[in-house]
This record gives sequence, structure tokens and C-alpha cells, in this order.
Amino acid sequence: MIPIALLTHHNDRFAALLETAGITQLATPSEAPIWLAEPALAAEALRQGSKPQWLASTYAGIEPLMAADLAKDYQLTNVRGIFGPLMAQYVFAHLLSRLRHLPRYATQQEQHLWQPHSYGSLQGQTLVLLGTGDIARHIASVAAAFGMRIIGVNRRGHAVDGFERIVALPDLNHALALADVLVSVLPSTPQSHHLLNAKTLAALPSHATLINVGRGSVLDIDALLARLDAGQLAHAVLDVFESEPLPQDSPLWQHPQVSLTPHVAATSFPEQVVRLFVDNLRRFERSERLQHLVDFTQGY
Amino acid sequence: MIPIALLTHHNDRFAALLETAGITQLATPSEAPIWLAEPALAAEALRQGSKPQWLASTYAGIEPLMAADLAKDYQLTNVRGIFGPLMAQYVFAHLLSRLRHLPRYATQQEQHLWQPHSYGSLQGQTLVLLGTGDIARHIASVAAAFGMRIIGVNRRGHAVDGFERIVALPDLNHALALADVLVSVLPSTPQSHHLLNAKTLAALPSHATLINVGRGSVLDIDALLARLDAGQLAHAVLDVFESEPLPQDSPLWQHPQVSLTPHVAATSFPEQVVRLFVDNLRRFERSERLQHLVDFTQGY
Repeated sequence: MIPIALLTHHNDRFAALLETAGITQLATPSEAPIWLAEPALAAEALRQGSKPQWLASTYAGIEPLMAADLAKDYQLTNVRGIFGPLMAQYVFAHLLSRLRHLPRYATQQEQHLWQPHSYGSLQGQTLVLLGTGDIARHIASVAAAFGMRIIGVNRRGHAVDGFERIVALPDLNHALALADVLVSVLPSTPQSHHLLNAKTLAALPSHATLINVGRGSVLDIDALLARLDAGQLAHAVLDVFESEPLPQDSPLWQHPQVSLTPHVAATSFPEQVVRLFVDNLRRFERSERLQHLVDFTQGY
Repeated sequence: MIPIALLTHHNDRFAALLETAGITQLATPSEAPIWLAEPALAAEALRQGSKPQWLASTYAGIEPLMAADLAKDYQLTNVRGIFGPLMAQYVFAHLLSRLRHLPRYATQQEQHLWQPHSYGSLQGQTLVLLGTGDIARHIASVAAAFGMRIIGVNRRGHAVDGFERIVALPDLNHALALADVLVSVLPSTPQSHHLLNAKTLAALPSHATLINVGRGSVLDIDALLARLDAGQLAHAVLDVFESEPLPQDSPLWQHPQVSLTPHVAATSFPEQVVRLFVDNLRRFERSERLQHLVDFTQGY
């Protein structure tokens, strides 16, 4: 049995789940050819001189492992396929709660007040998704069930099932101009840095809602605040930030048109991470190609 | 052109929409063979001695027209097919807002507090739908996109597309025992009266959420409160009540496990009502069978 190094903030939980799967031989990073690890903790271990044959990230985002000083001659996998449903639930929780005035009705209930308010429908609205991978496709499938029209944006405009229309990144502003709702699921890469800035945000209709569940670096917060304050954008739902936890002095906290959450849109439940890991471990043992390999040159 | 009587609380809005569709000849109920009317106002006009050839209800619920003293020898149609998307949006607004702690995060935002909380997923949960008609099928289609398992309950257990399993009404408790979420879309009929009572509610798991978007008479509120207070049911979302507006002294207003809304789960937007009406008017003029005819013996 190949020894495995656990480098997470929940090692007891992961060890118990691995044991259930019959995996009991754990070791230190220097002695284990396989690491099941949070990226930041794995980066530390790499800096201390150890290196795995295979590093299985417990997260989707693996930015800490992309640092220039770190070795990249090992196999890196991340978790995929388990975030789509959770991301979709987050996106529609926020969209629908606002659309259907849930906070307002909660207040009215406290006041014993029976007072209906008019509302719109998602049906027929246009959702623009930045990104057309696994997570975006899942959000698109739920949006379709709600009767939304779905436009995806990817680098070269290649067609993807589940999207009514795909727009290439250079034509981003054409897509944004059609958005009732804009959702970014983009990872942090040099290309995505501040992709949503003063120029691109200006393309959004003023009634649009922006939701960022990818990475904070995609969105220029100063540009966002300028649009919101000018009445050029209706609302922003933000789960990710360039600095996390969000600094106490950020103007986002008390902005009436911003809904904040502490990076919870999609959590990798250990059960699901271990299920993916055990599946990949069988492949590793048979020298088969691993699933969810990260391409170090692309950064995802 | 056949004159039409408008009997709604929004006659100006309806008249403008009809005019857009080229329908300009309006008349009083006694002079018009066609009424486009809210059921309660139409019932008043019937009692005053007028009777239409065709009464197009602007609502789905037509209980006031079922009263024993009223004539029933005319064609009655109601609005269908436009409520499914709105009902689905209501149901998932409430389910997801609770599941993803939105009120809690809103409070934390006011406090500048970055504190994640664990949460579950709709994926793999079981939704039991009381009713398998148009509205239920729409809710089922969205639930399927969220990865839920869907059980429908109808009178004789006849199969319906979009449901993993159908249970006949006599076996209701078998279905309820499997429910993570129970949604009733049942209309008010003698058969549905207090169908959810002390005996049937006892079949629900204690972690279940109950959502009533059909009619208030389906649910015995005293039995519901007993289950909630005994810790035998997690939460109830109620949009409809036996008496509306909900009386000020109802214990539901301040119950911590109850979310109330003032009968807003699905509103018939006049635009959609008029579109259905104009379509049916063409059929009426050609003596074709009308769509969405109500069967007076069934009450829907």
C-alpha cells in the first residue's frame, strides 16, 4: 500500500474517511509519494524540500501551487465535478431571494403585516456566464430549467452544450450588454485579472445583477463601486475577494447594493473529496492517467 | 365583435392590454356574453342575475364560482400554464435561502463579520409533490435540475413524466415518510380539505420542510403547529391560508419555524392573462373547444 500524506485543516476527518475506504497507511510528506492536501499547506511542504509524485488538492483553486519558486514536475489534480450543484444553489438562492423580496416579507411577518409586492420572473431573462466549464454548465442547466436564456463566454468562442450562444472573450462587451444577470466562475489567472473593470462593467445594463463566485481577482472592486454608486448597476453578490477575509475597512460591508458571503459558494465536503481521491488512487496504482489533472501552463 | 365585460380590480390595465390586441368593445355583464373576470367579482354579477356564455377567470383558483347557489350552465375557463415557473421560483427561493443561511449572512454583513457556516445540498434530497398537474410538473423539472429525487402524489397513482415515482393518494403516508421537502400545490376541493392533518403530518420526517402554495384549506394549521412545537417538523413555508389576509391573532405570525407570505407565490400578470384570453377568444369566435375549461364536477 502506498503511503499518503494528509495536509489539511481537517486531517482527523479525512483520516477517518480514508480508513472507511480501507486506506490506513499515512506518512509525512517527505515519506509519502502521494499527498492529499490543501494547496497552501502543500506549497509549504514543497518549500521545505519534499515533493510528491502526485498531489491531490482538496480544493478547486490551486493558486498557491503556481508560485514561481515552486517545483512543478509532479502530477497535480484538483477537485472538480462536485462544485457545480453547490454553486448553482448559491447563485439561485441569491437571485431568487432578492427577486421574491424574502427579506422584506420576513420583516413584514415580524410586524404582522399582510402586504403583497409585485415581482418579476427569471423566465425570459438572460444569464451571461463567464466561463463554460463544469461549474458554468451546471449553473446553465438550472438556469435553463427556470426558463432563462444562457450566453457563455470563453476564450475562443468554442461551442459548449447547454448554452444558447457562446461569445469569444474579445467580444465580451457584446455579451455583457445582453445580461440581466452576470455570473463569473472564472479562476484566478493572468488573463482573468480585473477582466471585469471600468470598461467592461460599463457594458452591463443598469438593471443587471453581478455575481462573482470564481475568484476575487477577476473583479476590480473600485470600478464595481463606481458603477453601483452611479446607478449604473443594480446589485452585486460577492463570495470571493482579492484579500480574504475581506478587510474590516472595505466599503463593501455596508454597501446597500452589495450582498457578501465569506467564500462559501461551494465547499468541498470531505466525503466528496475522498470519493474522488479513492477513485484516482485506483488509477494511480494501475499507472492509468489521473482524472482532473491540472495543466501548470494554464493554471487550471 | 363580441362585447366583453371586465370584472377585475385592474380594469384600466386590462382594457389597455385588450386594446393593444385590437379588442375595444367592452360592455356591462348583463350585455356581454363573455366575461373576463376575477372569480369573486364574477360570482357577485351572477348573483345579480346576469350570466355569460363564457367566463374567463383571471385567476387559477375559482372557488367562489363553485358556491351551491350559483348557476353553472356556462363555459368557465381559468388561467393555467403561467404559474409553474413562478411557483418554482417561490419554492426554491425559500428552500435555498434557508439552506444557504442568507438571513444569517445578511446580519453578519451588517456586523462586518466573516464567519462561514456549514450547509447541506439539495442534491440527493427527496421532494414530495402533492399534485402532479402543470404546476407540480414545473416544480419537478427545476428540482430535477438541482439533482433532487421527485415523488408525485395523485389520486389514482397514474404515471406522469418528470416524476421518478408516483404514489396514489391512499398511500400518501408512504410518500411523506420519504420527504426531505413536501410541497402542496393542491387546489381547494372537498377531497383535499385538511388532507395534511395530525395523522398525515406524523408521517413526515422531523427534518422535513413543508411548503404550501396550493390552497390553505389543505393544511390543518393546529396540527402543523403541534408538529413544529414538538420538534417533529423543521420548518413550514406558507403562502396560502384558510382565511386571508391571515388574522392578526394567528400564532403563525411569530412562529420561529414558519415563513409567511401574503399569497404571492404565483401572480397572474395581466399580460399573460390577456395573451391566454385572446387565444381562447379566437377559439370562441370559431366555435372551437376552449382551452383550460374548468370541470364544475371536479372543481378545477
